[in-house]
Amino acid sequence: MEAIADPAGLTKFIRDVPDFPKKGIVFKDITPLLGDPRAFRTAIDRLAAPFEDKHIAQVAGVESRGFLLAGAVAMKLGAGLIPIRKKGKLPRRVLRAQYALEYGKDMVECHADAARRGSKILLIDDVLATGGTAAASVRLLELLGARVAGIAFLIELDFLNGRKKLKNHSVHSLIHY
Amino acid sequence: MEAIADPAGLTKFIRDVPDFPKKGIVFKDITPLLGDPRAFRTAIDRLAAPFEDKHIAQVAGVESRGFLLAGAVAMKLGAGLIPIRKKGKLPRRVLRAQYALEYGKDMVECHADAARRGSKILLIDDVLATGGTAAASVRLLELLGARVAGIAFLIELDFLNGRKKLKNHSVHSLIHY
Repeated sequence: MEAIADPAGLTKFIRDVPDFPKKGIVFKDITPLLGDPRAFRTAIDRLAAPFEDKHIAQVAGVESRGFLLAGAVAMKLGAGLIPIRKKGKLPRRVLRAQYALEYGKDMVECHADAARRGSKILLIDDVLATGGTAAASVRLLELLGARVAGIAFLIELDFLNGRKKLKNHSVHSLIHY
Repeated sequence: MEAIADPAGLTKFIRDVPDFPKKGIVFKDITPLLGDPRAFRTAIDRLAAPFEDKHIAQVAGVESRGFLLAGAVAMKLGAGLIPIRKKGKLPRRVLRAQYALEYGKDMVECHADAARRGSKILLIDDVLATGGTAAASVRLLELLGARVAGIAFLIELDFLNGRKKLKNHSVHSLIHY
């Protein structure tokens, strides 16, 4: 699959893996990008860049691959870090938001005291696909009373129209397919 | 539980949660530390500090909480990032290392091409408890042919003697209980 835009030259560090996690899906493997010091730094710098002067209090990362990027972006922005986790992983009182799967549904959780009301949060994940997890994560942050100042992805799969589920939000993706 | 050493003043950002994930275990909840911009930066700076001049090529983080720290430490050190994942999560050919659980066993995996032979790697996780996961992660990195230049934890539970499983390695923990 050709990348539509790749200003930072990052796509050569992303591998297509056919039929993973199941038949018919082409998985975007970002591990070569993470593993290369220059590519990793470029990606983090570019994920953070639009938000440098936005007074982001915390960066929220979506479990698990979002964690790999969110910690680094938080460090870059001088922000704190909020883990948005799968069900049952967090030890204290949580807030929840559901999203639909192909069959059934799943949910994301964060601690009920993870953010102060009104604080500005940047949401980070590796891939924007159908947008279900990202939209649920946005709802979760809004339940906290936080302001979602932006949403940044390493990769956006344009043909899946996930961005439609995130309307009214500033969505920033480094690489489009 | 009192901290034995806390030079950076980080323990006030760590909460004890009794009986999580199961009865009798006191869970160390690090989410307040992650969420606070200054505490997070202090923790990352101090995790990275002993390795600043060690020419670390890559930082390996253990899924999932290790990912939150490892990405930020990699950024700080100008290194790449290797995700050490739970079974079945990585799309390409993997190497595996097993470790014992209370009942049964589990394994960690990384891509077989995740590191160059001889490259220096810093292993990061949030908590050193019994040391099973950390020791398996070290074996995994050695299977890759990499050199484990150090192992850094936010928290070490001294009374569980996990460090014994990591002998011959430089182990660096910010907070001891």
